[in-house]
Amino acid sequence: MKKLTTEEMHRLTVEEFRESEKLPLTVVLDNVRSQNNIGSVFRTSDAFRVEHIALCGICSTPPHREIHKTALGAEDSVAWSYHEDSVECVLALKKQGYRVFAVEIAHDSIKLGMDEMPAALSKVALVFGNEVEGVQESILPLCDGSIEIPQHGTKHSLNVSCAAAIAIWEMWKELGKGI
Amino acid sequence: MKKLTTEEMHRLTVEEFRESEKLPLTVVLDNVRSQNNIGSVFRTSDAFRVEHIALCGICSTPPHREIHKTALGAEDSVAWSYHEDSVECVLALKKQGYRVFAVEIAHDSIKLGMDEMPAALSKVALVFGNEVEGVQESILPLCDGSIEIPQHGTKHSLNVSCAAAIAIWEMWKELGKGI
Repeated sequence: MKKLTTEEMHRLTVEEFRESEKLPLTVVLDNVRSQNNIGSVFRTSDAFRVEHIALCGICSTPPHREIHKTALGAEDSVAWSYHEDSVECVLALKKQGYRVFAVEIAHDSIKLGMDEMPAALSKVALVFGNEVEGVQESILPLCDGSIEIPQHGTKHSLNVSCAAAIAIWEMWKELGKGI
Repeated sequence: MKKLTTEEMHRLTVEEFRESEKLPLTVVLDNVRSQNNIGSVFRTSDAFRVEHIALCGICSTPPHREIHKTALGAEDSVAWSYHEDSVECVLALKKQGYRVFAVEIAHDSIKLGMDEMPAALSKVALVFGNEVEGVQESILPLCDGSIEIPQHGTKHSLNVSCAAAIAIWEMWKELGKGI
């Protein structure tokens, strides 16, 4: 077994990334406190060509030393915007035709990897919440539904960057065909 | 949409976790430097009932303040051991009948989510490498193969805790039926 060299990986340059076809997925970070988590979400979003990250509320924004530590440059490739109010951000996405899902453990959640995703998904936004509070209550009634990552242990939730990695990975499988 | 309360989630106690049926998956961390990454892997392993984490080489071990920050107690539920030499650890796992896969970008890797996993997998070990070096070269020839998470952006790799989240999630889907 031989590892691929950096050249053999044929990764995109930042310019090529910007020109490339994207996954029709916007990631909304609703008041995520940890810059390390934000940076990790950038890095994962780069890997799966997420079209946009919306940083809301208390989220720090690039350029930021702590975001860079885990994003490692992905904050330069993935498009992002900042919104003071997560609710306004979600309303704007809905107006643009996005189906918006909170990644939350809620009654009637779609169980990722078990339940079928709604048919005819085109543009999707996934909302990930604060490390302690989760997605804020005022956003939930605006969403088209919630998506839950089924968990079987002692802890109530996953780290937000790990939850985002699993959800974005699954959305790539759902929406990424042909990209 | 209404979030589930902590009680409604019916999570396991640490004692119930220890008694519960586990995913026949051992996670080997080969010289992972960041205690935050190690803690996150504990938390993900708790969620998907990973049977064991083998911490090798420079990996810190619980109890550790920085591991606890991201594990949030999952270091008490998930079984773990420490091994000075990752090679010895992998050899011991093979002797116990584990199929060992390096999570690496290598020639002839199994592409996660695209290629079929080898048939008749029972006990599996996944090796995750150092944040900079990846899985050490001396381990690769001992493995039954490598598993790659297909990536489509500018960066060469994912954060190790995000890669572990995706790979453990996929192994739950492969090996977790009926648990």
